[in-house]
Order: sequence, then C-alpha cells, then structure tokens
Amino acid sequence: MSGVPYKIYLPESAAPRCWHNLRAVMAKMGCLPEPMLHPGTLKLCTKEDLAPVFCDKLIDQELNTTDEYIDIPEELVSFYRMYRPSPLVRAYCLEQRLGTPAAIYYKFEGNNTSGSHKLNSAAAQAFYAKEQGLAHLSTETGAGQWGTALSMACAYYGIDLEVFMVKISAEQKPYRKMVMETYGAKVTPSPSDTTESGRGILAKNPDTGGSLGCAISEAIETAVKKPGCKYVLGSVLDHVLMHQSVIGLETKAACDMYGIKPDIIIGCAGGGSNLGGLMSPFIADKLTGKNNMRFIAAEPASCPTLTRGKYAYDFGDTGRTTPLVKMYTLGCGFMPAPGHAGGLRYHGMSPVLSKLYHDGHIEARSYVQNEAFEAAVQFARCEGTLPAPESSHAIKCALDEALKCKETGEKKTIVFGLSGTGFFDMAAYGSYTGGGLTDYAPTDEDLQAGFDSLPVIK
Amino acid sequence: MSGVPYKIYLPESAAPRCWHNLRAVMAKMGCLPEPMLHPGTLKLCTKEDLAPVFCDKLIDQELNTTDEYIDIPEELVSFYRMYRPSPLVRAYCLEQRLGTPAAIYYKFEGNNTSGSHKLNSAAAQAFYAKEQGLAHLSTETGAGQWGTALSMACAYYGIDLEVFMVKISAEQKPYRKMVMETYGAKVTPSPSDTTESGRGILAKNPDTGGSLGCAISEAIETAVKKPGCKYVLGSVLDHVLMHQSVIGLETKAACDMYGIKPDIIIGCAGGGSNLGGLMSPFIADKLTGKNNMRFIAAEPASCPTLTRGKYAYDFGDTGRTTPLVKMYTLGCGFMPAPGHAGGLRYHGMSPVLSKLYHDGHIEARSYVQNEAFEAAVQFARCEGTLPAPESSHAIKCALDEALKCKETGEKKTIVFGLSGTGFFDMAAYGSYTGGGLTDYAPTDEDLQAGFDSLPVIK
Repeated sequence: MSGVPYKIYLPESAAPRCWHNLRAVMAKMGCLPEPMLHPGTLKLCTKEDLAPVFCDKLIDQELNTTDEYIDIPEELVSFYRMYRPSPLVRAYCLEQRLGTPAAIYYKFEGNNTSGSHKLNSAAAQAFYAKEQGLAHLSTETGAGQWGTALSMACAYYGIDLEVFMVKISAEQKPYRKMVMETYGAKVTPSPSDTTESGRGILAKNPDTGGSLGCAISEAIETAVKKPGCKYVLGSVLDHVLMHQSVIGLETKAACDMYGIKPDIIIGCAGGGSNLGGLMSPFIADKLTGKNNMRFIAAEPASCPTLTRGKYAYDFGDTGRTTPLVKMYTLGCGFMPAPGHAGGLRYHGMSPVLSKLYHDGHIEARSYVQNEAFEAAVQFARCEGTLPAPESSHAIKCALDEALKCKETGEKKTIVFGLSGTGFFDMAAYGSYTGGGLTDYAPTDEDLQAGFDSLPVIK
Repeated sequence: MSGVPYKIYLPESAAPRCWHNLRAVMAKMGCLPEPMLHPGTLKLCTKEDLAPVFCDKLIDQELNTTDEYIDIPEELVSFYRMYRPSPLVRAYCLEQRLGTPAAIYYKFEGNNTSGSHKLNSAAAQAFYAKEQGLAHLSTETGAGQWGTALSMACAYYGIDLEVFMVKISAEQKPYRKMVMETYGAKVTPSPSDTTESGRGILAKNPDTGGSLGCAISEAIETAVKKPGCKYVLGSVLDHVLMHQSVIGLETKAACDMYGIKPDIIIGCAGGGSNLGGLMSPFIADKLTGKNNMRFIAAEPASCPTLTRGKYAYDFGDTGRTTPLVKMYTLGCGFMPAPGHAGGLRYHGMSPVLSKLYHDGHIEARSYVQNEAFEAAVQFARCEGTLPAPESSHAIKCALDEALKCKETGEKKTIVFGLSGTGFFDMAAYGSYTGGGLTDYAPTDEDLQAGFDSLPVIK
C-alpha cells in the first residue's frame, strides 16, 4: 500500500483557491477552439450579445482566454468547504477482483446531496447571480443532477429558481423533482405551455417526452422575458468547465502529495463538464510538453457525439436560439432513443473538449447501456458506491483498460472520474437487473437526420 | 474558526482499531442492564440458546461484559476504510442562520451508498458470517437502511441474503427494494406466505402492511430452518451497539485532536444503535466521573418508546419468539400509526440505552413528524445535506438546544449524529412539502393496548 491511504482527502488548507482556465493555455499554445458566433449576424459573440441571457461575471469568465488561474471568491471557498475536497479513492478491492497489475483511482464527486459534480458550478453560478443582485434564475435539467445541484445552491443563496425538466425525466423520476422542490425550486416539465418555444414544440408534437435542447430553449426564453432573471447552464460552456477544474486541481494536488503518476485519465462525457474539469490541469501539462498522459472520453453508444458526430458550428438548443458554437455534434435536432437510461443525452459537446479531440489530444469510446450498467453493478458490489449511470461509462472504460494491463502485465495508473451516485436512478437499475434494458445505437439514417438539422454557415 | 476545519476527517492512521464495549464499563460500575432470558424457561440465555439463530462470534460479543475494547479484525478495518473515517462537520452556516452562540457539530454517517450508519454493523456481521463459513443470512428491514447496508456487505463478502421488508415500506419505497436487489439480495415483502409466522399473521389480518416485529419473526424462522443460514439484525442488541461505537470513537478522537469539548450529545433513537454508538466512549467517561455531559435521545411522538414506554421484559418481535430483554417498550404488539413517515418505528429500545435512561444518565425528547421534517428542510437548505427522516429528530433537538443558547447567551458545544441521508425518502419529503403529513401520537388507550401485549413474568 506504500503509505497511500484508501481515500485521499486533501486538507482544507490545500484546497484550490483558484480555478484553472484551460483556454488560456490553449490560447498560448495556439489551439483555441473557434469562437462563438451570433446566430443572426454570424459575427463574433460579444459580451453585449450575451448579457441579456447570462450573468455578467460568467460572461467575463466565458470570454477570458488570457488568465490561466482565476481566483475563487472567498464566500465560494466557504461553500466548497461544505463538501470539498472530495476524496481520491484507490479502488483496491476492484483491482483485486480484476486481478490487474494496474492501479485504479477514482475521484468521487457524489459525496454531496445533489449527488454529483454539478454542484461545483451551480454554487459558483448562484453566487455570481446573488452578487449581481439577481432575484431569479432559470435553467433546464435532464436526468436531474444539474437541477438538484442548482436548487441546493439557490436555496443557500436565497435565489428563486425555475427548472425546466425534460418531461419524460420528470415522469420517470418523480423523486428527482421532489428533491428540487424540497430545496425550494419551481420545477416545470418541458415542453410546457408557459413559453412560446414550449408551445411551438407542443403544437408540432403534442406527445413528445421533451429533450434537453427543448428545455434549454424554454429556460432561455424565461430568463430573457422575466425582469431580474438570468439563465444558467450546467455543462458545455467554457466557464462551467472552468468551475469544474476544482476536480482536476484537487486530483493533481492529491497525486503530487502521494507521488501518484496517472498514465490514463478517464471521464464520462455528455456536455463535457465532468471530464473537462478532471483533466484540466493534466492536459494543460500535456499541451505544454510536461507529460504524455492519455485522456479518454466515455460516451453512450446511443448518443455518440464524439465517436460519430461532426465537428461543426451548431446551436446549443433545439429551438435554434443560442449562439453558434463549433463542437462535435449530432445536430441540434438529434434525439437519443427514448429507452436510453444512461444519461449523457446532449447532442453536442464542450467546444474545448471538441477541439482537443479534433486535434488528437484525447480519445473517445462509446458503450451500449447494458455493458455500462454491468460495469456499474460490478463496481458497486465490490467498492460499495452505487454509481450514476452516467459515471458507469467511465467505469466500463477503466475496467477495459485495467483488463488490458492484466493481459500485458503493465502496471499502469488509471484515474477515472466517478462523477455521481445513482440514488435517483433506481428505476434504470431495476430495468437493468430485470433484463429490461435494450442496447441502442443510432443507424446511419438516424445520424443523417440529425446532421440535416445543422445550421448552414455560408 | 480557530483552526478547526469545516469537516474533520481523521487520518486513516487515527481510525479506531478496536470497538468500545460499553457494557464492560457498566459492569465495572455496577449498572449492567438485566440479562436476556430464555422465553420458555425464563432462565438466563446461554450461548447454546442463541447459537441456532446467531453467528458464534456475535454471540460472544453479545455476552461479553468484561473487555472494554474488542479488536476489529484486520479485514474489517480494510472494509471500514472504504467509507470511514466519516466526517465530523461544523455546522457554521446553520449557526449563522440561527444566530446562536452555540457551536454545532454533526457526525455524518450518510457518506456511503447504503446512506446510513447501519453499514458499520452490517459489515461486521457479514464478515463474521463469512468467517464461520455460512452461505446465507436472513434479516428484516423497515425503512430499508439496514437492509441496504447488509445487502452491500453481503455482496462484498459473497453471502446470499434474504431480506424481509415490512410490506408497506416495500410498496412505498420500491427504489429501496431495487437497490437491495441491485446488490444481489432477495427481498420478500413481510408478512409473506413463505414462513409459518408470516402465514399466521396473514390469516389473522390479511390486509396488514406488516411491522418490524412481524418481519423479525419471519427472518428468524427462515434462519432457523435453512441449513447454513443465520439471522442478523441491525439495532437493539449489544453487539450491534458495540460495532456502532466506531462512530463515537472517531468523534472523540476528532474532538480530542481539535480541543472540542461537547456539552450535549444528541442522537435519534429507534432501536438505539446510532445514539448508542455515538455516545459510547463519552458516556463511559461520564459513568466513571470524567465528564458531565448531557445525552439526549430524540424519538418520534408516534413511537415514544423512552418518553412514554414501560421499563419491562418484552419480546423483540411480534411473533413472541425471541429471548426476553429488559428494555423500554411500548409492548411487542404496539404498531405506530401507518401514516408515520419518519422511521424509528420499533416498539422497544436497546437494553443498554434503556438502563442508562432508567438510571437518569440520558434524557429523551419526542417530536411530531412535521416539526422533524421542518428541521430537516431548514438544515438541508443551509448545510446542503438532505437528512434521513430518522436523523431529522436529532436535528430538531439540536436546533432547540441551540436556540436555548441564543436566549441564555451560553456558548455550548452541541454534537449530534446525522445518521443518514434522505435520498430514498423523497415520497415522505414530498408529502411534507405538499402539506400532507399528519402529526400522530398514540392515545393513552393505544398505549394501554400495547402494554397489554407485554409478556407476564412471574
């Protein structure tokens, strides 16, 4: 065991006081992602373009490509202390069961009531909204992790919150809805008749179960129309990934403290905030020639954004109202199969992650849901923690890499992100253990239909 | 803040290597609880009497009144490392919101997938079963915390587990059932037609929602009849409280490390394992004149075992099959109101806690469920963590004590046990936030009916 504890909890004195802004490193190395474009003019998006929708400080962070480190406000440092630093755990039992010579670590972000890493950015966004004197925020949520996290943060800072929750999720996960309501949020199943975009979607497709893209449209419309209200979101954008860099900074500090040298860093990727946060300081070192780690994004086969998507400018929402971002995307009209239970259903991917993938700095794998759940249950039965279905994609990838080491005899060090817990996903686990989950992957025709929804940029 | 972190995580090197056996101290001080009696002969229960039902090592621990410290086996120390030491958290935000001069700490036992302190004893009991070469275990569960914890432990040690789950809980909490099944347990709603005692109860009362007492009868019958199977339980008995002493030992080590001197220690009490474990080393010091702390048991008004029960010999189960134990009890025939959502529904109380209460060393308070849930939501909105309804009784008590300090200006140090999380209790939270919870307290006639079920000891 060589003096490394099972769970490394950094002392609070070693907790990060700054976020890591990966884009500043990418700018320095000449590999910045393409900029956001105004959807009307196709010109660069300015702070003024974004101000009706987003909080001021968050726009500054979104557009900042110069400062590699940005101070975490003192009040937020206090908030983080309520549940951070999160543990970096050595999966000794899993290693033994696999019989692998690999060392497997996971950074566990589920040790807070929202149950996932989302709270890292929710707390920051609610704090800045409060600082700006806003009384209301609006957002969307799919599986519910982001909505729960933001509900907690808004309860803490005394901000009214309206969450547009993908309708089918609200129906399948009534308890997710109730936990948000317990924290005081107003939860509206989307599409709803409370917004123009919602009414438009319902008119075309009255029986739709909704999608993240629809819910985003409704949340943005609400923010723009309601005085003192702004829109916040939990993934994809650069400032969100930057807030999530606390995951990577803590992981790196823990690795440095105990002489752990990761060979492979793995994270599940939907919009990219979890993996982006985990790998931020590590890939900065790779870009600047200080390490040669491998980075792997694990995604569902039913929403294979990196592995089968296109690198193109696209809208962030189904309603085609957001700025255009250059990213890997399945097209803003793409919808994963309704029976997909593993989360990570967003059609696009963080522009930062997309660019790094496009340039060959990170790899990507996709997994069907039964193999992801199988990995999750194997993990739960020996490591104790019941993973979120999202995180199980990263577990599956880590298991595969550890088994490769067993074949080759290599003693690699694998670090993966256990981004959340599965407490609110028991219906999906019940379907899996009952043999009721179908494996999905879009056909080429399905994909083409999604690509046909991409905006035409002249 | 005087150098005390928000969350005190003991280093693993400071984690307890022994359990604390409070009964040895009570024996030394001449205040042992009355011994268990054989229900047929009314003579002292011997190891031979208990052997058909319980694991050998657990019987030794149950009957041990001489060793104040008992070694935790090395393999179990490793298991504990997966999720322990648990944090002792300073509730800074709660203190600020209350405006109290009191310092409030809580020992948080919800940071494991089972969501509560129950895993501390589940791991121990599954380990000893494995060591004894048993292939099967049976148990009962009410709200589901114990069943989940034991499912996790049995999955880890490769033991088949059958859980008799109180039928109304299994219906109200399908996800609790699914999480146990995900860990590989067989879950049978109780009363069932798989046992004689279950069939007997169903014959008399076909529409019953079941009770913990019924489920215990079915689990014991299963253990006695099935080769290679023993029965385990998650509270009340002395060996369970002893396993839970890791909570108190860690709390004491953390207090000693940071110079924290508790004035009041509070825990919710159903069967008594959580409070018993938390207070174990502290009350030992009180019994031997080394401190003058106050200890408070917080219980639901709908199942007021300490505050309105009798100190008498009683059966542990409805089927009247267990040994007789001297304890505070509402009578083995007592059933709390079906609309009671806050857990802690057992008719009796740990003999150790009962004796200490009887001798005036601990106090008890009861709370109706709406005031307990109100405290829980207040806590969740500023401290983040969503408490188990059980734990919310302790929170309510801590809030009351902190508000008393606000009146008097006293800077007391209050430590309470946050025994678990409320992830699987969202239906109850939904009822509370929707205004649908009724406050219950048994009438004197209800209590008398329970007392009439007490065995007559000549």
